[in-house]
Amino acid sequence: MKIDVRRNILEANQELSLENKEFFRTNRVLVVNIMAAPGAGKTSTIIKTVDSLPDKFRCMVVEGDIASEIDTEKMKKKGIPAVQINTGHMCHLDSNMIRGILGRFDYARDNVLFVENVGNLVCPADFSLGEDINIVISSVPEGDDKPYKYPSIFLKADAVILNKMDTLGSIDFDKDFFYDGLSALKPDFPVFEVSCKTGEGFDKWGNWLMEKFFEKFPDRS
Amino acid sequence: MKIDVRRNILEANQELSLENKEFFRTNRVLVVNIMAAPGAGKTSTIIKTVDSLPDKFRCMVVEGDIASEIDTEKMKKKGIPAVQINTGHMCHLDSNMIRGILGRFDYARDNVLFVENVGNLVCPADFSLGEDINIVISSVPEGDDKPYKYPSIFLKADAVILNKMDTLGSIDFDKDFFYDGLSALKPDFPVFEVSCKTGEGFDKWGNWLMEKFFEKFPDRS
Repeated sequence: MKIDVRRNILEANQELSLENKEFFRTNRVLVVNIMAAPGAGKTSTIIKTVDSLPDKFRCMVVEGDIASEIDTEKMKKKGIPAVQINTGHMCHLDSNMIRGILGRFDYARDNVLFVENVGNLVCPADFSLGEDINIVISSVPEGDDKPYKYPSIFLKADAVILNKMDTLGSIDFDKDFFYDGLSALKPDFPVFEVSCKTGEGFDKWGNWLMEKFFEKFPDRS
Repeated sequence: MKIDVRRNILEANQELSLENKEFFRTNRVLVVNIMAAPGAGKTSTIIKTVDSLPDKFRCMVVEGDIASEIDTEKMKKKGIPAVQINTGHMCHLDSNMIRGILGRFDYARDNVLFVENVGNLVCPADFSLGEDINIVISSVPEGDDKPYKYPSIFLKADAVILNKMDTLGSIDFDKDFFYDGLSALKPDFPVFEVSCKTGEGFDKWGNWLMEKFFEKFPDRS
């Protein structure tokens, strides 16, 4: 019974995600689903990424949180169009929530939509949103064992961002152990080591993202 | 339909949690449910707490994780009896999982059982396990906005541990903002500022915990 309900929910979500996907294709939007534990630096990473992309891209953000509008306010202060989704008790975003806010953005040109999922390394793994790219942000202070403990979400990821690299000297973090954990899940995981504080690593990550845009919309490359 | 299923699951869990509670009362066990985001330092905090409690207490640990036995191995290395529960896709522990492992500990004397829940600031808030005390560990590198973004789990907590205090100098963290967020949820929240690295704060937290034991089992105080 419990399993059937779960399957029905996942199937319904999957169908809606395809509709969202079609909407994004038609409106020239590359959609990046950002998943991470609470406090890994999702919001700061998105802001730094927007700064590092050329002006030809119109960047926008969906903020998923249980409660509060803190992150949306941060985005708006930076002049980035942002819409908040408060999920209440729900531990992840789903396709229906995304569909509900599609009309609130302006899609005038080449668009990149960052979806900041609820801070959670478990539930977001099961729910597609119609996104093109799935990213997991891990941060140095969280520790080096995350790929071992939360394999599903890393398996869903197309690339991993390792944030807060500036803290590496002062915090115990075995990089080899972290990378071994990723390799055990998938060989040749793209990993971008960044620091929102120093700005390191954002050029490489921004270039990778632009490549993904031109892979999806090759007519503009 | 979805809501009814959710209610049924929660009600069944609640009933089982009362059975667990009775088992723990009979066997002289104080049960501490430790909830936190991934990487907040649940395992290290439990190890340091066990070290700080007098030998008269027999400490034991249940390790909840999606996958891996990393934390259980750490406990066993320290000589702490530990049992792993791997939840697979489940984003929290529940009373039935706890019931399943009750027979695997020896309850010879005054016992403190630490239940390390799945690293998640959302789902564990909804599932009682038969515990006496709920603790949320927040850590400085996670940021100062967690009480605003994850109110349910903080509302469930009897006390908050603020971990990784040693990083306070090198990381942006507005303590007033953090405390204001807690006060808005509940006035006079007990908060223990600790660092597993320096050991600071564990005396005060350990004393509080012992008081809770003697409140539950006053015949030994």
